[in-house]
Amino acid sequence: MSAPPVEISARDNPLIQRLRKLTQDPAAYRKLGQVWLEGEHLCSALLARGGRAQQAVIARSAWMQRPALRTLAEGALRCAIVEDKLFAQLSGLESPAALGMLIETPAAATPQSDRDTLVLDRVQDAGNVGSMLRSAAALGIGQVLALKGTAALWSPKVLRAGQGAHFGLRLAEGLAPEALAAMGLPLVATSPHAEAVLGRHPLPRPLAWVLGHEGQGVQPALLQACALTLRIPQPGGEESLNVAAAAAICFYESQVRSRA
Amino acid sequence: MSAPPVEISARDNPLIQRLRKLTQDPAAYRKLGQVWLEGEHLCSALLARGGRAQQAVIARSAWMQRPALRTLAEGALRCAIVEDKLFAQLSGLESPAALGMLIETPAAATPQSDRDTLVLDRVQDAGNVGSMLRSAAALGIGQVLALKGTAALWSPKVLRAGQGAHFGLRLAEGLAPEALAAMGLPLVATSPHAEAVLGRHPLPRPLAWVLGHEGQGVQPALLQACALTLRIPQPGGEESLNVAAAAAICFYESQVRSRA
Repeated sequence: MSAPPVEISARDNPLIQRLRKLTQDPAAYRKLGQVWLEGEHLCSALLARGGRAQQAVIARSAWMQRPALRTLAEGALRCAIVEDKLFAQLSGLESPAALGMLIETPAAATPQSDRDTLVLDRVQDAGNVGSMLRSAAALGIGQVLALKGTAALWSPKVLRAGQGAHFGLRLAEGLAPEALAAMGLPLVATSPHAEAVLGRHPLPRPLAWVLGHEGQGVQPALLQACALTLRIPQPGGEESLNVAAAAAICFYESQVRSRA
Repeated sequence: MSAPPVEISARDNPLIQRLRKLTQDPAAYRKLGQVWLEGEHLCSALLARGGRAQQAVIARSAWMQRPALRTLAEGALRCAIVEDKLFAQLSGLESPAALGMLIETPAAATPQSDRDTLVLDRVQDAGNVGSMLRSAAALGIGQVLALKGTAALWSPKVLRAGQGAHFGLRLAEGLAPEALAAMGLPLVATSPHAEAVLGRHPLPRPLAWVLGHEGQGVQPALLQACALTLRIPQPGGEESLNVAAAAAICFYESQVRSRA
């Protein structure tokens, strides 16, 4: 640790006010330039990837009684020890964590055409987005490009659902659909109306899977720009799949099954 | 409609009090004997499956200005027209629906061994459970058996994430693990430590997929009772999959890919 820990008990402390903004407004990290990682798992995932936090925030009881969390906190450039009750008020979790870290908002990656990619077209639900990042990281999709209108990738809820996947992916967000054409990867989308069937049709490599808005699907202009549109067979009938479930199936097919 | 609609504007009306309990307590339907379906999509899904509501509840503005919702509401045995503000206070949704229905809590199905099945072992998150029911219905898993400790299947959040899948499935919940042995279907679980690999190992038919708690996975005794344990290949490395994403991949493999 570069500086001795400071103790905070006041609700109007500037750091606490900053954390309150970051936990309450999903996109506040864009303005404030810092991302809030809550919980031991996310903080450990950051460190496992060689990242370093600008600021650790630890609940007093954890500082006193949980040496593993204290060690994590001491690895940050600065450390603040916060009253348990104050920490709990900040938390978005039902069981509040006792440790969090602030990192500099990661710079957006420049889209590259050398790896399998996931394109998020206005996916709304933070849990869905986080689950998709997690599936991407586990199944070997190395890059995720979020178009404007998608849930903020570094928001607390997406981070929580991503379970650390963020740190192993190339990420960019706020992109316009035109940026995808410039990238040059063949775009592949799913649609219940497509004739080609997932699992029976060859897939381009590398490829970019395009997954769309929960209610509306992929926007029409983007669907038209796709090199391939596939139908996921649904032997159960006309029910549709959750977008994150559909993404997992697509990744499994392209990264595992069609290469077996 | 069997009775003329009644108008409700009082917060302490018995029906409103009942709805408040059902929207605030995920398991209240067990005690109260009624399930609350919120939103046009769920209500339509009920009717599409031949179900009938005991009670429709419609916001006044929708009753006046949205004939499609009014027609749905008029199909219920009883109909209540509620002030918009009161309806919005009841809703668990960010964009409150304008229509809801009460149905009798469906009787639990008796587990049967004649169809592919999903077993939920203490899956906690309502969104995950709903997504899994939706994947099950779409991909041809006809029966879902929830062990004690799983999120309440007919809670508003699980219903919302299920998007109507509930009405096409045989459902039972609150089961003890022993009930699975009595059913007689081969249990198949996933585990990152398994030697057999999904997609390369033959699957029994019919089968019961066992998916477990988000943090702890399938409980050890149940894992031991499984006829087969499989690993989902993760070319991306050591990250894990969200349980609903893992379920979608398993269903795709057993219902689609291994039969192609």
